[in-house]
Amino acid sequence: MKQLDLDLAEKSYPIYIGRNLISKQELVTNHITGNQVMIVTDSTVAPIYLEKVKSLLTNYNVSEVVLPDGEKHKNLDTLNLIFDALLKNRFDRSCTLIALGGGVVGDMTGFAASSYQRGVNFIQIPTTLLSQVDSSVGGKTGVNHDLGKNMIGAFYQPKCVVIDIDTLDTLDTRQYSAGMAEVIKYGLLGNENFFEYISSNIESLMQKNKEILIDSVYQSCYDKANIVAKDERESGTRALLNFGHTFGHAIENTLGYGVYLHGEAVAVGMLMASELSNLQGYIDTKKVNKIKNVLEKANLPISIYGKITRSEFINAMSVDKKVIDGSIRLVLLKQIGNAFLCDNYSSELLNQVIDNYCNKTK
Amino acid sequence: MKQLDLDLAEKSYPIYIGRNLISKQELVTNHITGNQVMIVTDSTVAPIYLEKVKSLLTNYNVSEVVLPDGEKHKNLDTLNLIFDALLKNRFDRSCTLIALGGGVVGDMTGFAASSYQRGVNFIQIPTTLLSQVDSSVGGKTGVNHDLGKNMIGAFYQPKCVVIDIDTLDTLDTRQYSAGMAEVIKYGLLGNENFFEYISSNIESLMQKNKEILIDSVYQSCYDKANIVAKDERESGTRALLNFGHTFGHAIENTLGYGVYLHGEAVAVGMLMASELSNLQGYIDTKKVNKIKNVLEKANLPISIYGKITRSEFINAMSVDKKVIDGSIRLVLLKQIGNAFLCDNYSSELLNQVIDNYCNKTK
Repeated sequence: MKQLDLDLAEKSYPIYIGRNLISKQELVTNHITGNQVMIVTDSTVAPIYLEKVKSLLTNYNVSEVVLPDGEKHKNLDTLNLIFDALLKNRFDRSCTLIALGGGVVGDMTGFAASSYQRGVNFIQIPTTLLSQVDSSVGGKTGVNHDLGKNMIGAFYQPKCVVIDIDTLDTLDTRQYSAGMAEVIKYGLLGNENFFEYISSNIESLMQKNKEILIDSVYQSCYDKANIVAKDERESGTRALLNFGHTFGHAIENTLGYGVYLHGEAVAVGMLMASELSNLQGYIDTKKVNKIKNVLEKANLPISIYGKITRSEFINAMSVDKKVIDGSIRLVLLKQIGNAFLCDNYSSELLNQVIDNYCNKTK
Repeated sequence: MKQLDLDLAEKSYPIYIGRNLISKQELVTNHITGNQVMIVTDSTVAPIYLEKVKSLLTNYNVSEVVLPDGEKHKNLDTLNLIFDALLKNRFDRSCTLIALGGGVVGDMTGFAASSYQRGVNFIQIPTTLLSQVDSSVGGKTGVNHDLGKNMIGAFYQPKCVVIDIDTLDTLDTRQYSAGMAEVIKYGLLGNENFFEYISSNIESLMQKNKEILIDSVYQSCYDKANIVAKDERESGTRALLNFGHTFGHAIENTLGYGVYLHGEAVAVGMLMASELSNLQGYIDTKKVNKIKNVLEKANLPISIYGKITRSEFINAMSVDKKVIDGSIRLVLLKQIGNAFLCDNYSSELLNQVIDNYCNKTK
């Protein structure tokens, strides 16, 4: 087992990464406060892992709430199901929430924990590759609104994160690839060596080689943790983590959530950002092709399949949280491993990239 | 004008208290970030003060959302009206929310500000006595759930609070009295001199004497601020501010929100807590009568009119956030001006007090 300690002043917490960790009782119980534990999971994960986790918690008053699976349920109404369960079971301020599932479960459970009685304890057991490398680190929690993704939420840190790599065995292949997009992202935005490591091992990673997976998840969390520790509330460097996301969110938003998985949309978004970087004279074409090649080997999309006009796309980009007083700030690449925030890109070149990607048909 | 600076480390903010402050542009504009301003108000306050506040903000992109008035609308659905307005108007992370109205508007706007894009700027202009002395200090924000009051929320501080005492001229008399309950509370829980001052001046206060009102609102905010500064997240001494509230919430909860105003329920709750304190051998009967007398002169209820059984009452008390692992912690009075947290009161005496108050008819 590897352990990574996130250093966020009073709010530090450990991330445990390894095999079969879901059976190691004390990893979870050491971080429970109070006697009341609410496991929040979804209809896909519950049949596989809920009883396993419950069996660790025989000494506690355990309740559960099983949410409908999927990004389209990540909203205030579904959030309220968690509050309903907490209140019906008379959970008080000393209780602990456990998020057991992917990013949607983690984000909603974290936001519920941040706002139930103005803040209770919570623990994350992420079971998808995406949530293991992304939403388990950094304290971003929240829900979507009809008019924009992740528009309602809080910065709130868990007490610990238990990443059991073996849970990836039950993850469907499309979800697995979507998670791999975020792993690739960490290399691209700030760690060229890691990108090279992923490129060299992409076949083994796609075969779920556990050693390489543990290393890759650890490195992803480590890189993200370093960025978050510098900038917990996203005023500066943390924005680099949004590499590919402003484009990606626009894809999700215009096509409708669920057509592309989040990681799939981010994959296309990273490629669009890389191409704009190339047109702006930064990263060279050979490198852009290398990025495209790794994404393809990870079975990720490299085009948008769906009808979107340029103005719809721009419109959707400008709803993103990265907008400051009206102008869209983008994360571009100087080189692989060297991303930066860019306000003064050419809007003509941006239009060109969008036109290259929109309105393709399969 | 009096100014009180709340000292909460990075999150310090000023409270301005005086006459006609709503016309003093710079008090508000000095604390606005960005260009986008959303005024959140309700259907009662909007016709009186909305245009006045908008006229101060001619240099900004100002939008408004007018919520339905009343505690019964303090829920996630109404909160979503604020998010709808923010997103429809494309408000970004640099925007400022202004809460213009009473406690319900303040609590919901604060929670919306804490969670919109995971946190934006907000300013409070409280227009009721209750919100001026209570919800404008301390950063408690949130909404109710069908199963409990203020169960969903956040600790979130405004950038400034502008208390215009003249707005109390348009406040209805029942609401005014309800606010006076909280003013009296500050004397009772921690400041005997202030309680004596209120007792001596209760007639002038009820006639809305502005000098005495400014002093009383300032002193209430000062006392609350001192307690909050010591204990921002309510782990200890801050709980003293809940004097009368566990009983009061039970009254509101069992009779239904809106039958008693919050301050009215707290008035009865303070008297119940004082009587229990008396039965437990702390404060003497003469002092309890003095408290009752001041509450009566403030036109506050001193009984419960409505059908509640003892078990309903106890049940409702135990849903309160002050419950730790099942036991109801109460705030009792050793003396006037000396409240304390009590776990080891006699449940028989508590039953006796509840029986004295429940099932009276007018």
